[in-house]
Amino acid sequence: MATTHQLTPPRLHHPSASASSAARIRATASLAHPHLLSRRLRLAAPDSRSPSLSQRHGRRGAMSVRSSLIDPDGGALVELVAPPDRVPALRAEAEALPRVRLAPVDLQWAHVLAEGWASPLRGFMREHEYLQSLHFNCVRLPDGSLVNMSLPIVLAIGDAEKEQIWGKPDVALQGPDGVVVAILRRVEIYPHNKEERIARTFGTTAPGLPYVDEAIASAGNWLIGGDLEVLEPIKYNDGLDHYRLSPRQLRNEFDKRGADAVFAFQLRNPVHNGHALLMNDTRRRLLEMGYKNPILLLHPLGGFTKADDVPLPVRMEQHSKVLEDGVLDPETTIVSIFPSPMHYAGPTEVQWHAKARINAGANFYIVGRDPAGMGHPTEKRDLYNPDHGKKVLSMAPGLEKLNILPFKVAAYDTVAKEMAFFDPSRSQDFLFISGTKMRTFAKNGENPPDGFMCPGGWKVLVDYYNSLQAEEATPVPV
Amino acid sequence: MATTHQLTPPRLHHPSASASSAARIRATASLAHPHLLSRRLRLAAPDSRSPSLSQRHGRRGAMSVRSSLIDPDGGALVELVAPPDRVPALRAEAEALPRVRLAPVDLQWAHVLAEGWASPLRGFMREHEYLQSLHFNCVRLPDGSLVNMSLPIVLAIGDAEKEQIWGKPDVALQGPDGVVVAILRRVEIYPHNKEERIARTFGTTAPGLPYVDEAIASAGNWLIGGDLEVLEPIKYNDGLDHYRLSPRQLRNEFDKRGADAVFAFQLRNPVHNGHALLMNDTRRRLLEMGYKNPILLLHPLGGFTKADDVPLPVRMEQHSKVLEDGVLDPETTIVSIFPSPMHYAGPTEVQWHAKARINAGANFYIVGRDPAGMGHPTEKRDLYNPDHGKKVLSMAPGLEKLNILPFKVAAYDTVAKEMAFFDPSRSQDFLFISGTKMRTFAKNGENPPDGFMCPGGWKVLVDYYNSLQAEEATPVPV
Repeated sequence: MATTHQLTPPRLHHPSASASSAARIRATASLAHPHLLSRRLRLAAPDSRSPSLSQRHGRRGAMSVRSSLIDPDGGALVELVAPPDRVPALRAEAEALPRVRLAPVDLQWAHVLAEGWASPLRGFMREHEYLQSLHFNCVRLPDGSLVNMSLPIVLAIGDAEKEQIWGKPDVALQGPDGVVVAILRRVEIYPHNKEERIARTFGTTAPGLPYVDEAIASAGNWLIGGDLEVLEPIKYNDGLDHYRLSPRQLRNEFDKRGADAVFAFQLRNPVHNGHALLMNDTRRRLLEMGYKNPILLLHPLGGFTKADDVPLPVRMEQHSKVLEDGVLDPETTIVSIFPSPMHYAGPTEVQWHAKARINAGANFYIVGRDPAGMGHPTEKRDLYNPDHGKKVLSMAPGLEKLNILPFKVAAYDTVAKEMAFFDPSRSQDFLFISGTKMRTFAKNGENPPDGFMCPGGWKVLVDYYNSLQAEEATPVPV
Repeated sequence: MATTHQLTPPRLHHPSASASSAARIRATASLAHPHLLSRRLRLAAPDSRSPSLSQRHGRRGAMSVRSSLIDPDGGALVELVAPPDRVPALRAEAEALPRVRLAPVDLQWAHVLAEGWASPLRGFMREHEYLQSLHFNCVRLPDGSLVNMSLPIVLAIGDAEKEQIWGKPDVALQGPDGVVVAILRRVEIYPHNKEERIARTFGTTAPGLPYVDEAIASAGNWLIGGDLEVLEPIKYNDGLDHYRLSPRQLRNEFDKRGADAVFAFQLRNPVHNGHALLMNDTRRRLLEMGYKNPILLLHPLGGFTKADDVPLPVRMEQHSKVLEDGVLDPETTIVSIFPSPMHYAGPTEVQWHAKARINAGANFYIVGRDPAGMGHPTEKRDLYNPDHGKKVLSMAPGLEKLNILPFKVAAYDTVAKEMAFFDPSRSQDFLFISGTKMRTFAKNGENPPDGFMCPGGWKVLVDYYNSLQAEEATPVPV
């Protein structure tokens, strides 16, 4: 189980040189002048009042900034938000179009597409993209090369909507609240074979898969693909939008900080000291290899998650405490929200998690045991072989340019009284604390062993579970 | 539904030039000297008494013969049958090894592997090959390129066999009759998650899939991969072994005939005049494009098929009649048996059918409606979208060098009283005769419309169904 980090050395050890073999553009001015680097605590979004690189260079133009960051898939970051001066015309146009109402998960995917996390996709998949994703987990570019694309990013519609749309080239998309958020152009409608989609995506058709229950089972029998044009940046007004940096904004941040390596950590759980250990250890190793300024992208998933996962606002508060308590270094860490919904599709989904981070500028990706996995919904076992995620990720077509960093397993060392890399020669000294066990501690108001999580972060969880219990205890008015 | 042939023109119109961009070796002497070409009726195997190219050049050496045929996947044809002088030592060695008994389908796969249909695979898949096949339908070569590999070619063992083998490097494989047929070397044992394998291969887990019932459901919970060394060419002694040409033998035949294009037709049903029409039409089009000598590989599948398919010996007799009756031209047709078992896995399996024919030298592949498809086992619909097979095939990684020829749909033209390409402008004149309808005709002793199938071929089917009914009518002794 325990594996060592396998790092690819940088081509050249000077920060002004490209850190990625795929990066064809040169280092930024700020990289060549370290005294210009921003060293502020960077937990939230970049200050929107100061001109950012994207503003200086225009949000829709090709990326003209000089950067050492890894290239987005397809060569250029796809951005599908219309310029503000086009919006009135688009709103007027939308009035005359047939309409499709997006479910909350659909809106999250529209967000993902709009900001280019799924570059080079330019909208919900048409059938030729869907079939390639479903069968090969990748799609072919016009030049014949392959980019990874393991999850079908599709929009389902029902029979009535199909009738209404049939023969029309463009469709207006409304958010769950009824407001038009986008236009889908040159649409293509094709059958939604749910059984096949579920079987090929999840490797099972067992009832009880959270994403299937949320977004597939009751969805329509047709899929509609096309080119997306989003009217305005998608916001959730939940007090967390400032954490939702787009790939463009993240790339600008990495450039401002003079990153010569970016290592991404995907998570949907609270950060304990075992996580912190491996993130800090990764940075140490990258420095040893000659990188001068590796930046950590701590990147919690912000879209749909299953009911018993810790909710996003609680997790964001917990992550803040972890940085405040100094477990992670704010100088070299960017915390941001990844807007994708969660499939819980294990080895298939981990490819999506990695691929999307390439588009945000990450050239190193940390992968652990059973990424994007869960228990089998009807059998007493893990749904996926816990080792398959990292194996499949390391083999995946279209991810060759990404450096995969397999986890060492961390566990609680009862002798040193801290989280440490598991040492099989004294296995009796180690305690494995699962997510379920952690939640049970927090629910029961028990403390985990000292050193498992920073006290500030732990308190956030305890308070959350207390509030749940208080809620349950409150009598419901009849 | 009706699509036109999409042909890639040959690079040069002279037969001595390479017909494939991937072919790196030069034309044979016989290609440069057409008067040397073999023009005999070639229905069965090449005469085993006359020295073949493979014998002259040694069966296990790298392919040194000069040929214009498409390269095998991985560059060299894999051949895993031991030279005769090694066999006594291998038999002695096998005595001391743990043993695995092959089921009939396992033996068919050993045959497939031994002759290089699955080149570059050198044995039953180890886990890294299995995972790539399952998730990506292709495997990566050491040089980073991808070859197609859509079906897991795996060997399952049970818990007891696993215990017996654990820690041993090599294993002897026995045929269903108990005779040792091969040694599997440097074995790797890994879990056989049947649910995931079935879901990802078939796009459903519904009960009643023929291959699952035959070869997966009751198979062991472990898979064993390794390098295969087969003691002797695998034979079935069913009177049809002379039809079972290996990829090497087929390549030699194509070279002897001076083929500058080879177009393969996979089938598991009797040949009717609609099939013949499109095979003859394909040849005509290849000639129009400048090929001088396109050869048809009529290539019925010979391994496991479901119970209600027409059995192989009956099909082979039917195919013989089709050539005897002149419906296909024996001069430009090779009939041979493809030893693979049938998965009925639709778009996933058609890739295997195409890929294997590359290894046998085919650079054109004919694909029709719903290849490798069947009815859904529990719902009243096709299991696969009938158009997905040809679409997926045309997109599949690793098949770029193969020219895909999508079918035009042929049907019975009631005006012309013959099978003809369907003309949507007078659709009322056409009669679609399904496999089920054809079998019903034959079972009931009714004749199909004149011109549906040559009389000799039709008689073979009628006789077969009569013999079945006679069998059913015979009282079973108690």
